[in-house]
Amino acid sequence: MELKFPVILASQSPRRADILKKSGFNFKIIPTNITEHPYSDGSINDYVQNLAIEKAQIVASNYPNHLIIGADTIVMINGQILGKPCDEDEGQKMLQTLSGKWHKVKTAFSLVHVDSNFKQSYIEETLVHFREISVDEIQSYIKSGSYKDKAGAYGIQDTSASFVDSIEGCFYNVVGFPISRFIKILKLSPFYN
Amino acid sequence: MELKFPVILASQSPRRADILKKSGFNFKIIPTNITEHPYSDGSINDYVQNLAIEKAQIVASNYPNHLIIGADTIVMINGQILGKPCDEDEGQKMLQTLSGKWHKVKTAFSLVHVDSNFKQSYIEETLVHFREISVDEIQSYIKSGSYKDKAGAYGIQDTSASFVDSIEGCFYNVVGFPISRFIKILKLSPFYN
Repeated sequence: MELKFPVILASQSPRRADILKKSGFNFKIIPTNITEHPYSDGSINDYVQNLAIEKAQIVASNYPNHLIIGADTIVMINGQILGKPCDEDEGQKMLQTLSGKWHKVKTAFSLVHVDSNFKQSYIEETLVHFREISVDEIQSYIKSGSYKDKAGAYGIQDTSASFVDSIEGCFYNVVGFPISRFIKILKLSPFYN
Repeated sequence: MELKFPVILASQSPRRADILKKSGFNFKIIPTNITEHPYSDGSINDYVQNLAIEKAQIVASNYPNHLIIGADTIVMINGQILGKPCDEDEGQKMLQTLSGKWHKVKTAFSLVHVDSNFKQSYIEETLVHFREISVDEIQSYIKSGSYKDKAGAYGIQDTSASFVDSIEGCFYNVVGFPISRFIKILKLSPFYN
């Protein structure tokens, strides 16, 4: 896809980079290490969208003529946010919570272009259902280490693929980037050639 | 996952093998080259399930103590089956038909174990929605060659990922194998340790 400005992905997620590459985008990666302040109150959508904007803006200040993409993904169940687990125990508890139930995955992404004073964010939601998973399955997944650095302690594209028996919405949103929505938005944006 | 008998996947689809490997299965691959008779009348589900059984049975006769997995995937839109396109033109027409609409993906899989006289087939259906895709996008995808050997002329896991903006049901069913359902069935089967 041809865009008017060079693109930077302001995210350290290899999954987001893979999705964008697979769809034919050329871009640089400049991850931002912001300290994600935990959600306290107000709209959860605003919270995630603000994080996506914040990540892009840190990079944008140094690259005013680049189109910067920021993103953030959260998992929600029973009104609670499941972030990235800090250790095996927390990862295991998260997977036990998800077993046999529906949850929501929200990915916000932002587009920031300083030179044209453009700053927008968007949010996409997918419902995900886990089959009943056994303690053995959970432990074996946790031991593999794949739970690390993943909101909700699983990656739908890795060995936990079989935990998910149904989704409603965009699959790649659950992986971490709603590529179809992103392209629809780009096509309507001033950045599309 | 530990099973009582060695497993054979009777399919030449590298995507099915990948899904099973990712979920921790050990198996041999022995593809079957049956001439798939086109659907004529009767239940479409029966037709796909019979194909899955047929593929497994050809291998099963030589490996009576192995658990054989057969599978077949079809794409349906407006009551018509979209098979594997025979050339670029047909691939392009299929993608134009899918653009901006919902379609169904049905994957049937079978389990055959001759020594215990076990022969069952199952079917899983997923609804898939394509965003409006442009002629340029279709042509560029067709030129990449990824459309080949794929029912409906696309692979949801490859560069056409961005064509799909929503699904309802199992994602891996669309890739070619409903791994979550498969594991649920295995756990209730006589083959599970």
